[in-house]
Amino acid sequence: MKIKTDIAHFTSPLYLESGRILEPYDIAYETYGELNSDKSNAVLVCHALSGSHHAAGVYENDSKAGWWDGLIGSGKAIDTDRYCVICTNTLASCFGSSGPMSQNYPSEQPYRFKFPVVTIKDMIKAQKNFLATLGIYHLRAIVGGSMGGMQALQFAVDFPDFADDVIPLATTYATRPWTIAFNKVAMEAIRKDPRFQDGNYDKDAFKEEGLDGLAIGRVAGHISYLSPHSMDKKFGRNYVNNDGLFELFGRYEVERYMEYNTANFAKMFDPLSYLYIIKAINTFNLSRGYDSLYEAIVRIKASIHLISFKADYLFFPAEMEHIYKMMQRNKQKVSYHEIDSDYGHDAFLVEIDKFENIVREVLGE
Amino acid sequence: MKIKTDIAHFTSPLYLESGRILEPYDIAYETYGELNSDKSNAVLVCHALSGSHHAAGVYENDSKAGWWDGLIGSGKAIDTDRYCVICTNTLASCFGSSGPMSQNYPSEQPYRFKFPVVTIKDMIKAQKNFLATLGIYHLRAIVGGSMGGMQALQFAVDFPDFADDVIPLATTYATRPWTIAFNKVAMEAIRKDPRFQDGNYDKDAFKEEGLDGLAIGRVAGHISYLSPHSMDKKFGRNYVNNDGLFELFGRYEVERYMEYNTANFAKMFDPLSYLYIIKAINTFNLSRGYDSLYEAIVRIKASIHLISFKADYLFFPAEMEHIYKMMQRNKQKVSYHEIDSDYGHDAFLVEIDKFENIVREVLGE
Repeated sequence: MKIKTDIAHFTSPLYLESGRILEPYDIAYETYGELNSDKSNAVLVCHALSGSHHAAGVYENDSKAGWWDGLIGSGKAIDTDRYCVICTNTLASCFGSSGPMSQNYPSEQPYRFKFPVVTIKDMIKAQKNFLATLGIYHLRAIVGGSMGGMQALQFAVDFPDFADDVIPLATTYATRPWTIAFNKVAMEAIRKDPRFQDGNYDKDAFKEEGLDGLAIGRVAGHISYLSPHSMDKKFGRNYVNNDGLFELFGRYEVERYMEYNTANFAKMFDPLSYLYIIKAINTFNLSRGYDSLYEAIVRIKASIHLISFKADYLFFPAEMEHIYKMMQRNKQKVSYHEIDSDYGHDAFLVEIDKFENIVREVLGE
Repeated sequence: MKIKTDIAHFTSPLYLESGRILEPYDIAYETYGELNSDKSNAVLVCHALSGSHHAAGVYENDSKAGWWDGLIGSGKAIDTDRYCVICTNTLASCFGSSGPMSQNYPSEQPYRFKFPVVTIKDMIKAQKNFLATLGIYHLRAIVGGSMGGMQALQFAVDFPDFADDVIPLATTYATRPWTIAFNKVAMEAIRKDPRFQDGNYDKDAFKEEGLDGLAIGRVAGHISYLSPHSMDKKFGRNYVNNDGLFELFGRYEVERYMEYNTANFAKMFDPLSYLYIIKAINTFNLSRGYDSLYEAIVRIKASIHLISFKADYLFFPAEMEHIYKMMQRNKQKVSYHEIDSDYGHDAFLVEIDKFENIVREVLGE
């Protein structure tokens, strides 16, 4: 299939959870598969912190497939022969949707810190508005991992009738201080990097050499995306060839991995967007706006299929099990699957073979 | 008891594991309790990454007690009425023993990056040399947590007859990539901080305002010293009063904790020392210098009493259990205690009441 990004422009205001207004705003998106005539075959896929709307397929003259290409496509678990799969870039991100480096209309300058704080609730509200432009007022399913799972759950709570099935993976009902602390590394490292210039950097400043602060923060991120076991397997205690054991900056393989991945990431991701998105993750709490977590959860009408990963050190399985037990007590439609994996949080991106059958079954019904 | 630090000066060379030589060198130390006439009541206590030789008691005109004051003292588990407790500042640290900011004799300049990489093996060799200056050639016991536990184990392997009992807490037999990755955050953040000046900072540069890079690295450290559960208990999802939920830099309590503690730490700890000590932790591997871990462990003649903490996310209980099982198979003298604690790695400093009875029993025999 031929893949391309489109951008939807909204001139009506988006009323944010903070009381502030975003106006105008853009939502970048991709679709895979055809929307049927009664528009009943739409599946929304939600991305994580560093992801984008490019969830599947390969762009022309490109080689890298979308981040969930193993799951989405013709004949795959989210089958584009049957479903029209839609993925939007979240608000505050840096791949085409409105974010802190977008134009703060009517000025010709980017918002930078004038961009309003957005929450997971705001992200899904914008997605819902976008779906309306396609004439979609009901989804067959919503699927997402990590921050994408937060969006999926928030959708199920805020708009109980909107989807038949919701599949949140590797996520939680409210971000714990453990995760906020990991994000704190990035927040401090970005803010304190002199090249960040308190947010007043040039738009192209980091294309050649990424912001160190973002790379440093991302090291902490990668720790939380892996697990002690997967690091043992991936790297062991192996030394990088030619790096001396007794050289102060001689490196272990795990250190080279961190250097390489974080340096590349810092060239392609905007540091202000990173700050805004980790803020959205930190403030995620399904119960906010409701009297309690119970009052939020009990609203859900969709069938929820919770998928956690045994060695997820960012959002622990017990957090999703908590949702499961609460819904079960309420006699709501819910299933819970703890995947036997020692990979860590990123298993939802990497070990698709371990959970695709669950997704296939939900969507095959 | 009156507490004071002494410094022992060594003019003979210390042959390091790297093949390099440290000469001359200093070892800062404190003792608590009296050495008996046959010098048979000495207990060595080994400190962790950020610790010092000030393990117990309170200095004159000071209020803060040593880092293990709850465990060491008159009538306490390590009873200074019976034992002469000795604690030395490790090589490469910044509290009086030789480290990268020590004078690179005969020049009048500090070593900085010319300081040789030191290992856990080197640290205990220097400690053994120091003990000889007190006429001590045998220890009643060696006790240490985290990096202190590495020293305790390395002592037991390298000098099998040196101690009767060895109590390593919250440690491992070889540092895993998981821990190396946490240390990588500090390594990158320190090196990339412009005020670090590639190690050429003034000695007093950070007294007023600590190095940001060290503070940032320390945030990652604190994550690994706590646990998801202890953070829930300590901080929950509480917001700092007056900090706005929808302000980008409005802070959760866990964030304030990180800011406060890491800023203070960066004022009192030397960043070059930090780099050298995390290198020593990274390179720790009991089997280095022996044919295998088995060949290292089987040398041990002391009774080993391994204490791990259930929710230690830095050195997991399974790592110490591995030593236990190996020694048990070899029919060596060993016991293993997994403390039921959800505090995290720092439980060895904080939850003394949960393991002091084990220490008391070993030393009461």
